[in-house]
Amino acid sequence: YSSGDVRRVTLIPGDGIGPEISAAVQKIFEAANAPIAWDPVDVTPVKGRDGVFRIPNRCIELMHENKVGLKGPLETPIGKGHRSLNLAVRKEFNLYANVRPCRSLEGHKTLYDNVDVVTIRENTEGEYSGIEHEIVPGVVQSIKLITETASRNVASFAFEYARQNGRKCVTAVHKANIMRQSDGLFLSICREQAALYPDIKFKEAYLDTVCLNMVQDPSQYDVLVMPNLYGDILSDLCAGLVGGLGVTPSGNIGKEAAVFESVHGTAPDIAGQDKANPTALLLSAVMMLRYMNLPQHAARIEKAVFDAIADGRAKTGDLGGSGTCSSFTADVCARVKDLE
Amino acid sequence: YSSGDVRRVTLIPGDGIGPEISAAVQKIFEAANAPIAWDPVDVTPVKGRDGVFRIPNRCIELMHENKVGLKGPLETPIGKGHRSLNLAVRKEFNLYANVRPCRSLEGHKTLYDNVDVVTIRENTEGEYSGIEHEIVPGVVQSIKLITETASRNVASFAFEYARQNGRKCVTAVHKANIMRQSDGLFLSICREQAALYPDIKFKEAYLDTVCLNMVQDPSQYDVLVMPNLYGDILSDLCAGLVGGLGVTPSGNIGKEAAVFESVHGTAPDIAGQDKANPTALLLSAVMMLRYMNLPQHAARIEKAVFDAIADGRAKTGDLGGSGTCSSFTADVCARVKDLE
Ligand SMILES: CC(C)[C@H](C(=O)O)[C@@H](O)C(=O)O
Ligand SMILES: CC(C)[C@H](C(=O)O)[C@@H](O)C(=O)O
Repeated sequence: YSSGDVRRVTLIPGDGIGPEISAAVQKIFEAANAPIAWDPVDVTPVKGRDGVFRIPNRCIELMHENKVGLKGPLETPIGKGHRSLNLAVRKEFNLYANVRPCRSLEGHKTLYDNVDVVTIRENTEGEYSGIEHEIVPGVVQSIKLITETASRNVASFAFEYARQNGRKCVTAVHKANIMRQSDGLFLSICREQAALYPDIKFKEAYLDTVCLNMVQDPSQYDVLVMPNLYGDILSDLCAGLVGGLGVTPSGNIGKEAAVFESVHGTAPDIAGQDKANPTALLLSAVMMLRYMNLPQHAARIEKAVFDAIADGRAKTGDLGGSGTCSSFTADVCARVKDLE
Repeated sequence: YSSGDVRRVTLIPGDGIGPEISAAVQKIFEAANAPIAWDPVDVTPVKGRDGVFRIPNRCIELMHENKVGLKGPLETPIGKGHRSLNLAVRKEFNLYANVRPCRSLEGHKTLYDNVDVVTIRENTEGEYSGIEHEIVPGVVQSIKLITETASRNVASFAFEYARQNGRKCVTAVHKANIMRQSDGLFLSICREQAALYPDIKFKEAYLDTVCLNMVQDPSQYDVLVMPNLYGDILSDLCAGLVGGLGVTPSGNIGKEAAVFESVHGTAPDIAGQDKANPTALLLSAVMMLRYMNLPQHAARIEKAVFDAIADGRAKTGDLGGSGTCSSFTADVCARVKDLE
């Protein structure tokens, strides 16, 4: 990308509060003169001839064209034949690295004030393989799948991420004491990649130990890389330390494409009432700008969001404030303009 | 058991600091006149004709005789052919429920002061099945095994535990949104058991959500029941909230036998130096006394331990005190006698 052109981004507003928080992001990007044009698209699943519901072709085409997407929360329809739509997007485009930075926010006090970790989660396999069988009645097996390729993709991503973001240490999180072959493979690939990044410190730790240490002193961790399920757990734990999924961003990154998304729910109870907090989607959009090599725009919007939260007057209800989605958005817009 | 007789308990002192903390428990039990006689036994694995190392027969026989064991930490020898000895004990005797209470301790301040949860972990299957294959080079599968029988054993144990311990609510922790069949089976059995305990409230929650909520407000949870790996993670997380594995007990309970153990490591760096904290093993021994229907002895020793920690003068170094294993033990002994 050269930084003058306008780039097109696929926008999946999502369900529930999705449209409101997506509109907030669009407004703030406009205020910031971010060179982004949005292609909104619907992902309501379409039933194929085989009876299986799938992401509509238009969405898939747009993703392939634009290569970059921003996504609000999706509601997975209840009932058979539906796998999570949030996961479908990750798998469809082989977005093998799920990146979730968690940082303590000034202006939103929790028990912890020194959190600054990034979980990097393998995003395509592990316990999420989707392969399960009932062997005999009452005996079920699920396959945890670990491949050298996916492990190398995510491990090398983690070290590259650490280097490019000035991070000092990558910790591989595993249970290779129990799953010697599968987690053993993952760990051996992490070691292989670690050897290629002598500038980045490398550590190994058991998942249970990391959970214990993380709640006692999160400052001992930096970047963490791990198989899919472990990342699901640890990223939520870390989000909890800094205020929850309403304030933590995420990115799903592959070789050819990337989708940035807020990972909170659709919050149907408050949808359409101008109560939603757009922070997680906004910070995800900031990650997106950095990914698209627009660091100045990213930094400006990020600072405006952090300042708005630190100031506190426009904070939304979930953060203990009395602001609305619109008043918070207006506050961030004003700050973005002041920072120009 | 009738409460007058002396009962024999198999004692596996364990490695590293194991012998010191086991001796501490024995001293304190003596001071408390607990009607327990110990049968110490070694579990250094013995190589069978097939080249596989196994728990010695003497240990297995003693366990079958006594039905109750107390166990310090075991070091698993490094190298092929060794599975964790700690796990071997759990599987050998089908100790299907792993119970780990975590309570905030007066006198040992952490960020949390309102923790009072009990994780009940399926202890024999799940990702701990030990079944793994390399399908083709670079592609490994591990089998997560969930059976109706083991799920029912642990679910019914959890509700029975809740009822007998005056607990109000059992939460089944799962990822049935991802592992629909395996965790789905576990969850359906929890529901079936919940229906048999109308006096106990029943909730269901995703593991990631529980991790997030737990670090924000542990007081919302009571008893939690879950598959093996999830319990490994969540029990360590909860232990972290109250001060770590040095102060949290555990019990492995089956239909025919039970082994109570501290789940911290062998701490070879401080072994033999009179620095070890015997609290976790002591509180495990207290759980054992309750299991053996010796509630008065249990309550007295427990109070003595809590009081010694609250008082603080004899606290060991890991808790920020200047006591030794012996001075702490002496302090608890004195308190136990005073409570008589
Ligand atoms: C919605 C759910 C399927 C998903 C997951 O398990 O990965 C979510 O928890 C997440 O972390 O993005
Ligand atoms: C030592 C290890 C094999 C064990 C486990 O993974 O179960 C430990 O973490 C535990 O929780 O008892």
